[in-house]
Amino acid sequence: MNKKLNKKLRIIPLGGLEQIGMNMTAFEYDDSIIVVDCGLAFPTDDMLGVDLVIPDISYLLENEDRVKGIFITHGHEDHIGALPYVLKELNVPIYATKLTIGIIEHKLAEHNMSSRVRRKVVKYGQSINLGCFRVEFIKTNHSIQDAAAFAIYTPVGIVVHTGDFKVDYTPVFGDAIDLQHFSEIGKKGVLALMCDSTNAEKPGFTQSERTVGHTIDNIFAENTSTRIIIATFASNVDRVQQIINSANKYGRKVVVEGRSMVNIINTASELGYLDIPENTLIGIDELKNYPDEQTCLITTGSQGESMAALSRMANGVHRKISIQPNDTIIFSSHPIPGNEKAVSRVMNELYRKGAKVIMQDVHVSGHACQEEIKLIYSLVKPKYAIPVHGEYKHLKAQAGLAKDLGYDSEHIFILSSGDVLELDEETAKVNGHVHTGAVMVDGLGVGDVGNIVLRDRQHLAQDGIIIVVMTIDGDNGHVVAGPDIVTRGFVYVRDSGDLMSEAQAIVSDTMEQLADEGVTDWGRIKNEVKSSLSDFVWKQTQRSPMIIPIIMEI
Amino acid sequence: MNKKLNKKLRIIPLGGLEQIGMNMTAFEYDDSIIVVDCGLAFPTDDMLGVDLVIPDISYLLENEDRVKGIFITHGHEDHIGALPYVLKELNVPIYATKLTIGIIEHKLAEHNMSSRVRRKVVKYGQSINLGCFRVEFIKTNHSIQDAAAFAIYTPVGIVVHTGDFKVDYTPVFGDAIDLQHFSEIGKKGVLALMCDSTNAEKPGFTQSERTVGHTIDNIFAENTSTRIIIATFASNVDRVQQIINSANKYGRKVVVEGRSMVNIINTASELGYLDIPENTLIGIDELKNYPDEQTCLITTGSQGESMAALSRMANGVHRKISIQPNDTIIFSSHPIPGNEKAVSRVMNELYRKGAKVIMQDVHVSGHACQEEIKLIYSLVKPKYAIPVHGEYKHLKAQAGLAKDLGYDSEHIFILSSGDVLELDEETAKVNGHVHTGAVMVDGLGVGDVGNIVLRDRQHLAQDGIIIVVMTIDGDNGHVVAGPDIVTRGFVYVRDSGDLMSEAQAIVSDTMEQLADEGVTDWGRIKNEVKSSLSDFVWKQTQRSPMIIPIIMEI
Repeated sequence: MNKKLNKKLRIIPLGGLEQIGMNMTAFEYDDSIIVVDCGLAFPTDDMLGVDLVIPDISYLLENEDRVKGIFITHGHEDHIGALPYVLKELNVPIYATKLTIGIIEHKLAEHNMSSRVRRKVVKYGQSINLGCFRVEFIKTNHSIQDAAAFAIYTPVGIVVHTGDFKVDYTPVFGDAIDLQHFSEIGKKGVLALMCDSTNAEKPGFTQSERTVGHTIDNIFAENTSTRIIIATFASNVDRVQQIINSANKYGRKVVVEGRSMVNIINTASELGYLDIPENTLIGIDELKNYPDEQTCLITTGSQGESMAALSRMANGVHRKISIQPNDTIIFSSHPIPGNEKAVSRVMNELYRKGAKVIMQDVHVSGHACQEEIKLIYSLVKPKYAIPVHGEYKHLKAQAGLAKDLGYDSEHIFILSSGDVLELDEETAKVNGHVHTGAVMVDGLGVGDVGNIVLRDRQHLAQDGIIIVVMTIDGDNGHVVAGPDIVTRGFVYVRDSGDLMSEAQAIVSDTMEQLADEGVTDWGRIKNEVKSSLSDFVWKQTQRSPMIIPIIMEI
Repeated sequence: MNKKLNKKLRIIPLGGLEQIGMNMTAFEYDDSIIVVDCGLAFPTDDMLGVDLVIPDISYLLENEDRVKGIFITHGHEDHIGALPYVLKELNVPIYATKLTIGIIEHKLAEHNMSSRVRRKVVKYGQSINLGCFRVEFIKTNHSIQDAAAFAIYTPVGIVVHTGDFKVDYTPVFGDAIDLQHFSEIGKKGVLALMCDSTNAEKPGFTQSERTVGHTIDNIFAENTSTRIIIATFASNVDRVQQIINSANKYGRKVVVEGRSMVNIINTASELGYLDIPENTLIGIDELKNYPDEQTCLITTGSQGESMAALSRMANGVHRKISIQPNDTIIFSSHPIPGNEKAVSRVMNELYRKGAKVIMQDVHVSGHACQEEIKLIYSLVKPKYAIPVHGEYKHLKAQAGLAKDLGYDSEHIFILSSGDVLELDEETAKVNGHVHTGAVMVDGLGVGDVGNIVLRDRQHLAQDGIIIVVMTIDGDNGHVVAGPDIVTRGFVYVRDSGDLMSEAQAIVSDTMEQLADEGVTDWGRIKNEVKSSLSDFVWKQTQRSPMIIPIIMEI
């Protein structure tokens, strides 16, 4: 019996299917594992105090000797953001296109990891052989340059992973998506397609990035007598290029503001992805040398992020820029779900300061809509469809498109993180599940904030804390100091003197009663104190602060 | 000199202009003050643990003897929700239409205030004379029945306040907005129009509530073999009526689920605003007696509220209903800004359980779009335009419409809460400002949560708390018990033994050093402990938990 026939390709998503972000997928065959993407997720509202979330890579660590490398589709945080954390535990080489590697290098430098991480720039059309896999890089378009899809050649067939993509026939920089390449691979016969689902609910075709350039150009043409401030995503280098083009065309100097914006523009310029005409960029301190109508600011903060440059301008706390009634301010972005209110807040402040605010039609998505998704399916003609990248409803919507294209449900797999999809030339099925999860990063701590800590933070956030302290004589159990009551985040103490002294009396009464009963078990004493105080506080305030009795013994 | 010429009408918004919610406006002339609406706002994201927010009525309390009564435009929380709190401090009569009074009565009963509050049902066309004001009720349409606009006759002219409104020529219940009435008042000459701005950014005309009925009917026609679950706003009685109509038409029994939905349906039925055919409503426990395709559930939770019935069903924690793969679930609502993610989360869970989810075209707004706003302006033809009800950008958009209609900026007033707009027959200007604000309600506490408590809750939420306790001998300053360290919401203590014992050592060292230096000032001791511990913790974790040193003396 042929050994190969016994073996299967195992596709294991380690994140990215329960949420937007944390994209990471393992491909496993025999002694080889390769990984596609290594992204972070931003904390959800209930993850109080958490900075970012990364995938749990226990499965990869358990199989460390088999992991050959990580392939990165493009340089967005939800695809590269977990790299510094993952690479600390699993030092394998990284493969990506030039700009993507450039952005990753910046990130590694921030973590002092530049020297210890192996990385290789790969060109479109080029292939990397790792273990029993060969990974071919295919040109796509996205809201960041140098995005790639992968054709992963495995012993049982080809898997195509689109990464995040759109079809842009008229991109601002570089070539359009290499549809012929997709087609050529499709001709060879593709086992499975893992395709971006983000916009799978949206009919039609995503517009070209270039259309935004026309809109921006028109806004510059119509607003020749005011300063122009444009907020957009730092990583959208093509957008920045188009803004710079318009600024240059209309004789404006350009200031770039916001740390992430400055970083990415530097990286992109150095690597030749951004063409800035001479004498266009000026420093923020030079602004005063030019009349308003000859200046343009490109800034971060298009999502209403409270610490970003535009928000600070709107709130009047930016050190260098104050919004004036004759400013024209452009949001070259759509609010990402969840950011609507924050964006509105910034817009209201800008309006209040008299500025003109423009948001309509100054953005296009970086993700494929329904017709583009169907186009890719029709070129690649995979045997199996595996919708990826999106919330469940998005995956479901892509599954619907696949059904429209004639796939039956046995050939469509909506996976959950950790699912093991086993494939050979003939069959595919989910067989088993590996441990996955979300690891919360808070400051320097990776994974030390878990459910218990979070639950405590939620409790503290809701109603604050009451601390009851007393010192007991260990010999006779008498209270020799206290009870003292300290609260934070519960009530305004200065106006709640009565409540506080009553609470103290309740604790004293409880202690006396326990002493009368001869109770000496500290655990029980603490519980009784907690419960009597908690009853009292609820009756008085209908709040349930965290109550912490602390008993010291001398 | 005519005494009247010396006097001015003062319009003072006490809330509602910096946010959605908390609508309340005082009208003042000579010895008379009347108030329009008395709404609450829901807490913003940074108001941790706060249940609701009400306007600060200091100004009314200072002028208590002049306040004659409160007129309510309609029964939504952002117009009536502060009543129980305000009426406790300012017992004046309430005037509103029948359903609005019915809803208010329910609210008063919940607060045990039924007997002490005077209230009067007013019919459309009827007028109430209070002090120097006469207030005439005008029929409008909105997403709740019995909404009214007010024509406020004052000694210096008529002010028209639209309340929340739309123009619905084909309402589900009762009459269309009384445009002739608006026109008739306009003919008399109107001094100022205070018009709903919510949809002032939206072009066109809001569709009739009845269009939703057609959509719902079609969905019932197309899904005859599954159970149907529809989530909508509890207070939209017309929506509920239309759902019941379709259910009845297609032979389905109706279950109403969710406390607020049950309450409002009871009130509306009792008062004759809802027509439920006999044998249509069944109890939730009777569901099992009918096949799925003969049942329909109307439920709360259309905004993804985590405790609402639909969310509990989606999360599999509803006591009586579990979602089945063959359920058709309709969101008859749009997500209110800020709720998008919560709604998506519920939708994803429903999809994951195999249900079919429908959201498209099953909702219309209750607020006037641009053409309706222009219609009202054209009928009322006010001298002054005062956009109300909305965020700043919405007010600004209505101001833009007024400009399009020929108003110059001297005749348009975008007010802030607390602004005093003084008007006489000839002039209008903002003259002065009164104290206003947002009073936070948390449990039974009204106003005892302020900025200090909130800041503490935010701090606790972010990084948790470290409590350091020790007992000192008052005679010699020696530590006789402790230091003990207790943390919550900081790190997972069980995995952080080293960190904890190091922290303890740091505190002991600090105490020893202070003792060597002969420091006995407790304030200083606490500060030194806090600062050394805070430095240590930041270096180790890059977190800044709240640190509370507690020193007991024996």
